[in-house]
Amino acid sequence: MDSEKFDLPVGYQQRPILRQRGTERQMTTDKVAEETPVALVFNGISHAVMMATPLDLEELAIGFALTEGIVQSKSEIYDIAVHPFPASAEVELTIAQSAFIKLKERRRSLSGRTGCGVCGIESLALLDLEPEPMQITALPELLSPVIARAVNELSQNQFLMSETGGVHAAAWCDFDGTVLKVFEDVGRHNGLDKLIGHLVMKQQDLRAGFVFMSSRASYELVRKTARLGIPMLATISAPTCLAIDIANKAGLKLVSFCRQNGFVEYTNFSTP
Amino acid sequence: MDSEKFDLPVGYQQRPILRQRGTERQMTTDKVAEETPVALVFNGISHAVMMATPLDLEELAIGFALTEGIVQSKSEIYDIAVHPFPASAEVELTIAQSAFIKLKERRRSLSGRTGCGVCGIESLALLDLEPEPMQITALPELLSPVIARAVNELSQNQFLMSETGGVHAAAWCDFDGTVLKVFEDVGRHNGLDKLIGHLVMKQQDLRAGFVFMSSRASYELVRKTARLGIPMLATISAPTCLAIDIANKAGLKLVSFCRQNGFVEYTNFSTP
Repeated sequence: MDSEKFDLPVGYQQRPILRQRGTERQMTTDKVAEETPVALVFNGISHAVMMATPLDLEELAIGFALTEGIVQSKSEIYDIAVHPFPASAEVELTIAQSAFIKLKERRRSLSGRTGCGVCGIESLALLDLEPEPMQITALPELLSPVIARAVNELSQNQFLMSETGGVHAAAWCDFDGTVLKVFEDVGRHNGLDKLIGHLVMKQQDLRAGFVFMSSRASYELVRKTARLGIPMLATISAPTCLAIDIANKAGLKLVSFCRQNGFVEYTNFSTP
Repeated sequence: MDSEKFDLPVGYQQRPILRQRGTERQMTTDKVAEETPVALVFNGISHAVMMATPLDLEELAIGFALTEGIVQSKSEIYDIAVHPFPASAEVELTIAQSAFIKLKERRRSLSGRTGCGVCGIESLALLDLEPEPMQITALPELLSPVIARAVNELSQNQFLMSETGGVHAAAWCDFDGTVLKVFEDVGRHNGLDKLIGHLVMKQQDLRAGFVFMSSRASYELVRKTARLGIPMLATISAPTCLAIDIANKAGLKLVSFCRQNGFVEYTNFSTP
């Protein structure tokens, strides 16, 4: 990877969008938060990859090493080097030998990977950022009434959210926007996994509807949705750059900032 | 672990709270979303632990296996058994031998752990849910003006959020509620790590202020904050049960639903 010839990140990038407000549609661009794989390397050994906004990576590495108990104090970190790349970054830390030995011992008893998409894998080379393009067979022709109905129905079906205020919802909707099933979880990716598990158990046709999430649209949600051939992901909150880019590669239709009276399309723009 | 003698989870539990609205304070209880470690075991090998709401765990396991590409179709899952425990759960899956061989091969090339707290570790036995009790030396005596100021100042310092609508903020505040430093990230745990990295680089006294997050209060944020001896965590959105329980064990003061004119205390209740 060539770390020389590109602009340093500012935390967001411009992406083309199609914004619908009431009956008005506008093709424009908007700023979208960057979500980038960042590998943390301790004494030459790649330890963790996390999805992060690619700013302040020295702070990130020091804070991670401390808050995860890898080092006990900053004095055990001898050196840090940040290597930004066009679509990823690596932070190399040199830590005290005693801390590194403890880390290696702890690693020997761990070998899991993560429940939430990419973070937890060990090196950037293992990232799976190239989804197969999907065969989209059907999508709603007129999106406004579909999103309006889904927004309205979802809000009436968030039982745990209304009790606790602390969970995300993952819903399955038909192409009319009717909410057919909702799962709620403290983790958005868990909510999506539960929903997809249910649909598969019930032998539902995953090409005949879309997933509607109460959360932001992160990389992991797009990657999981695309892997099952689901044609559209709608979310109430913002998407990340990587979510948009992966959705584009997969051919998934991504719609965010969904409200009763508007939404923003990020991929597979509808013809007006 | 005894999986017989307890009620099945409903997704939330009651916790004592101290609610402040304007000048009114009320000691009461409230429903809080459950956040529980769930271990997924494939053909007898523990593969991943994730923090999840302990409902619909069969759906979670099937969805995870499919969306992570561990199995290609539901027909490769032969059997599922869910074992709920009082403070955790395990799901045992029996998958096709061909899928299990591929999983083992993939695992051989992975050995990382995760950037976001617990998920990514391999087995429940490796969980670190027992923080050392902290020595709290100081906390704000009158919390209302402190939270009000922090809420007001944080909203004026969320640069990336105002541009993109898609990131969390982690702020360091003094005991007057003055926001001294803000980091923003698509991952709340990354924002916190960046903030703590910065404070340690600047040799700030971590006992002389508190962390204020724009997000929910999850287990990971409490665990990371407590590990550094920071006396208080305030968040704008809801906490989870586990976040409250870990904060109690650590002696950390946890304050959530922070608004200009109110907040909710979950641990170390202030005397009126």
